[in-house]
Amino acid sequence: MQTVVIALGGNAILRPGQQGLYGEQLESIDRTADQIADVIARGNRVVVTHGNGPQVGAIVIQNDAGRDQVPAMPLDVCGSMSQGMLGYMIQQRLSAALHSRGAERCVTTVVTQARVDAEDPAFRRPSKPIGPFYSEEEARAKMRETDETWVDDAGRGWRRVVPSPDPLQIVESDAIRSLIANDVVVICVGGGGVPVVRDDEGLRGVEAVIDKDFASERLAREIDADKLLILTDVPQVMLNYGEPDEEPLDEVRLEEAEAYERQGQFGAGSMGPKVGACLRFVRHGGQAVVTSLDNASTALDGKAGTHFSR
Amino acid sequence: MQTVVIALGGNAILRPGQQGLYGEQLESIDRTADQIADVIARGNRVVVTHGNGPQVGAIVIQNDAGRDQVPAMPLDVCGSMSQGMLGYMIQQRLSAALHSRGAERCVTTVVTQARVDAEDPAFRRPSKPIGPFYSEEEARAKMRETDETWVDDAGRGWRRVVPSPDPLQIVESDAIRSLIANDVVVICVGGGGVPVVRDDEGLRGVEAVIDKDFASERLAREIDADKLLILTDVPQVMLNYGEPDEEPLDEVRLEEAEAYERQGQFGAGSMGPKVGACLRFVRHGGQAVVTSLDNASTALDGKAGTHFSR
Repeated sequence: MQTVVIALGGNAILRPGQQGLYGEQLESIDRTADQIADVIARGNRVVVTHGNGPQVGAIVIQNDAGRDQVPAMPLDVCGSMSQGMLGYMIQQRLSAALHSRGAERCVTTVVTQARVDAEDPAFRRPSKPIGPFYSEEEARAKMRETDETWVDDAGRGWRRVVPSPDPLQIVESDAIRSLIANDVVVICVGGGGVPVVRDDEGLRGVEAVIDKDFASERLAREIDADKLLILTDVPQVMLNYGEPDEEPLDEVRLEEAEAYERQGQFGAGSMGPKVGACLRFVRHGGQAVVTSLDNASTALDGKAGTHFSR
Repeated sequence: MQTVVIALGGNAILRPGQQGLYGEQLESIDRTADQIADVIARGNRVVVTHGNGPQVGAIVIQNDAGRDQVPAMPLDVCGSMSQGMLGYMIQQRLSAALHSRGAERCVTTVVTQARVDAEDPAFRRPSKPIGPFYSEEEARAKMRETDETWVDDAGRGWRRVVPSPDPLQIVESDAIRSLIANDVVVICVGGGGVPVVRDDEGLRGVEAVIDKDFASERLAREIDADKLLILTDVPQVMLNYGEPDEEPLDEVRLEEAEAYERQGQFGAGSMGPKVGACLRFVRHGGQAVVTSLDNASTALDGKAGTHFSR
């Protein structure tokens, strides 16, 4: 039985243009749970990871809106709240999807911390936008009152940016490993995990966000997973994306993929980190696949997606 | 090695009069983590459960305050958010406290659902106050717009009340059992667990709160724990509480305790459900102790607290 880490993209929970209503999120999660349940019912051990961008953004807005009545929580705590929330919703719907297939499993969410290096260069250049847009005046006031960094986001308003350091360790991987060995389906590494650094007093949360694909890769390695399956909104990775000679990649070997990466084929935006995470996993001896949510099961049979191997 | 379920009272996280600032909560959790780490370092397998009253109250306020900007989440989802938040804080500080004792353990939070009966009579009489106080006018408007129940809370304003049904099953207990068998310290059943009912489509969250002591007892039974240790703000349960002949209880047998219970010795407020949960656990063959946070370790040696046994 192979162990597969399935990293869900943002659209697995909330689709573009949706407001984030509870019902909308639950509906998307139901659709996602069906796909994951198919993978499990076909005899795979599965660990599910997921993003949390829109959800932690909403929690930050709520914390800000309520700050005259109750104290606002720091970003790391908001991240842990989003893990509880999304984990709860996913475990509930995934259990139901498994039940309807006669493939009962215990499905459990593990609140996850990802350790980063306090000296990671990312801390010197915050780059990841988080939370709501504000006016320049409000943003400048926030910068005076806090040590937050806010930037002008291409005319849409000012937005807070935080560092995105590289995950060095998934703190709870021992627990996750023992759960999957007992046939429990685990949901973890939500939003890439809560970023923590180690100091004399132990671990401490930091104001940052971790790329969920890199964190999922780190987890996949630590639990000796066989495959990393990154689900996004396109069925395959493209060469020469958007050009007349654009071409989908079916299978690609490490050296070849590294050559494409050096050519800048995968962009710095969405596909770059996904391919980067896949290549890391392949370098450590695993196999990785990028495809769309609807192709999850087919891709594991080798019939869809872009497959990365040594 | 005995397995102990430690149920933390509200003051283990936030003390009376505190506002709920992140720093205040972290400081209380540090003090609590020290006590729990002592229990673990002395060779006990520990599962930690906790309340979430002030925290879920704050999340409800934040959801309400931000509702013009982002959709508010239902109470079950707010509960899961509080589990993520408190679990994260407790696991981080408990790991540090264990590390400082040279007693390293993996400490992990499991997001927990507690199944209740949709026909539980509690659903017909919502009784548990939740969230902020509102004016009568606002409360009446809420009742018109939703199916919520609001009541006049003894002159302090109007407050929403929700049902408090009896927990029948801890949905994730298989996962919790396999974690403790692997020496993982588990934090779970936060706020009594998210209340869910089973219908044709699986489990579904309901607008209710579950008594965390009864939910902890249910968990203790399902994982075959040896002891249920309920930590509160007094070192012992009292007979004739507040009377001139008030008397602390050291050890009490089931029949004797049931007689006291019938006399109304333990009150319906704070101590009643705690003693009720202890007696349930004793009836199912376990041992139960009520004491204060600072006496946790001593109480397990039989040198403090009120001990319930067959």
